[in-house]
Amino acid sequence: MSAMALPIALTMGEPAGVGGEIALKAWLARADGLPSFYLRDDPERLAGLAYRLGWRIPVRAIANPGEAAEIFPAALPVAPTGLSPRARPGQPDPADAPAVIGAIDAAVADVRAGRAAAVVTNPIQKDNLYRAGFRHPGHTEYLAELAGGGITPVMMLVCPELRVVPVTIHLPLRRAITCLNMAAIVAVARITDAALRAEFGIPAPVLAVAGLNPHAGEAGGLGREEIEIIEPAIATLRRQGIDARGPFAADTMFHAEARRSYDAALCMYHDQALIPIKTIDFDGGVNVTLGLPFVRTSPDHGTALGIAGKGTARAGSLIAALRLAAQMAAARTRAEARG
Amino acid sequence: MSAMALPIALTMGEPAGVGGEIALKAWLARADGLPSFYLRDDPERLAGLAYRLGWRIPVRAIANPGEAAEIFPAALPVAPTGLSPRARPGQPDPADAPAVIGAIDAAVADVRAGRAAAVVTNPIQKDNLYRAGFRHPGHTEYLAELAGGGITPVMMLVCPELRVVPVTIHLPLRRAITCLNMAAIVAVARITDAALRAEFGIPAPVLAVAGLNPHAGEAGGLGREEIEIIEPAIATLRRQGIDARGPFAADTMFHAEARRSYDAALCMYHDQALIPIKTIDFDGGVNVTLGLPFVRTSPDHGTALGIAGKGTARAGSLIAALRLAAQMAAARTRAEARG
Repeated sequence: MSAMALPIALTMGEPAGVGGEIALKAWLARADGLPSFYLRDDPERLAGLAYRLGWRIPVRAIANPGEAAEIFPAALPVAPTGLSPRARPGQPDPADAPAVIGAIDAAVADVRAGRAAAVVTNPIQKDNLYRAGFRHPGHTEYLAELAGGGITPVMMLVCPELRVVPVTIHLPLRRAITCLNMAAIVAVARITDAALRAEFGIPAPVLAVAGLNPHAGEAGGLGREEIEIIEPAIATLRRQGIDARGPFAADTMFHAEARRSYDAALCMYHDQALIPIKTIDFDGGVNVTLGLPFVRTSPDHGTALGIAGKGTARAGSLIAALRLAAQMAAARTRAEARG
Repeated sequence: MSAMALPIALTMGEPAGVGGEIALKAWLARADGLPSFYLRDDPERLAGLAYRLGWRIPVRAIANPGEAAEIFPAALPVAPTGLSPRARPGQPDPADAPAVIGAIDAAVADVRAGRAAAVVTNPIQKDNLYRAGFRHPGHTEYLAELAGGGITPVMMLVCPELRVVPVTIHLPLRRAITCLNMAAIVAVARITDAALRAEFGIPAPVLAVAGLNPHAGEAGGLGREEIEIIEPAIATLRRQGIDARGPFAADTMFHAEARRSYDAALCMYHDQALIPIKTIDFDGGVNVTLGLPFVRTSPDHGTALGIAGKGTARAGSLIAALRLAAQMAAARTRAEARG
């Protein structure tokens, strides 16, 4: 069975957040060319949520992901986690941590066993999991561990017009500058290049590397990180056959004409990557984890506890995450078939 | 004579750059509701440039800016600097520095004497002026000195959808973080607030203040500058009656819906301000200097030596700068009339 015919495994995420309702909304939009997916979640919770919101959505428990594709057109397939979440909308409960984590574990097991094409994760509430003893910095690091360790997961944000990859992520800006180094840029660029080839079907990817300082340092007049760290990293990458270019002044890299000249922008810190993509496409951005032995995407927003349970959360980012996951899984299958 | 009827003084800028040809292009676009302007430049140079480019533009030397408005519909008015630039397109000549600086001096003298409504400056080539002994860090600082000293000039970038003000500007990012302080944020915010009232005609401006760190520091988990510097600055501003809000996560401040909730975004460093505005509107952005005793705008690009003399440079930013200068001068006149 090819990955193209396999369904996508969607995790429950924090049950007090908007994950359930955006999953229901995504299923309602299935006529619009959405790939088949099933939830790793509690069927009763989802049926109750649909009822409360007044949405006519038949929920169907499945024993095996293999049933999902056939059921999907007529009902929302849910593979039970075996645990009933206790949280009410907007109010996370640490007792739900095993269900939240169990859904991730099961979805990863599915994709690794060839039962699912890809994993799409609904947002989790980290502080709630921490209270229950979760020991990983976040979703992505946990997935990397489930994938067997020794993996450098790389975060890419994707919208139809732009792909960005921050080299440093959740660090205070001051520390991001201190931590920036050549090895990190080279490692992230290599993983990005490989993923663009294998999972995005781009045979000769172009990576645009941003400078750190204003005007990319103006030849040393406005900072030396370009000269000491970024330019040597680009030179190393080029010697390895990777088409990395730059460093470019970050402020002139992201307008429509500039965006057409590269396949992904490598950014030196969180906001350098996230400001342009969220400015261009606030609702439709997708978070992708590169470097894992399977495809994983997620909507580019949090649990949105403040609006959970009302049915008002926008499902655009989850829908884009499901679509992109299916495309990436198909590209990966084709790349593997070519060897 | 009201400022609304006065012409705008446009400086020559670096004669080896694109200033001359974008001024000619702007004049050609005059039917499209452009305010009257005149150049402080060399009429012979401009007539020669128009001839070389094959553009039919009658150039008329004027002795006094008072003649400009009447001449403008039929010919491009030029108040001679008295010096003939020697530079060829793309090749700056330090011998032209007195002409470049003289044009700025004359335009400022015009606006201060009530002969011009506002000053719009064409881009200068700083390194060329430095070679000739120019001792100011840049255009803006020189204008502040001409205006009498004791002035903190504030840079604002404006496009139809967004106004941004960087609190720190041309510093290496590492130094921008070190230099960030409460007094600077408060000073810049006060000048911005006053300008939005007097020059943009906004009676109750809202200022959105960006955080420095990812997610605006996540309550200290991702950096402490928000807690130690930015929040106290906002509290001080609010006590002074200024509607400053934030600190906001910079990545979610600049999408279309967010932009509608404030009149200007105060940013902590160069690229935090310039990435969003250049992503949204690369060609039409205008650079405005706030805090001067007169209105000054400029196109938001440099001398573009590489394409100078070809007639291909886009005049959109200069045209927007001329329009905005006229609007700001009119608002300022109305504000002064109200007292």
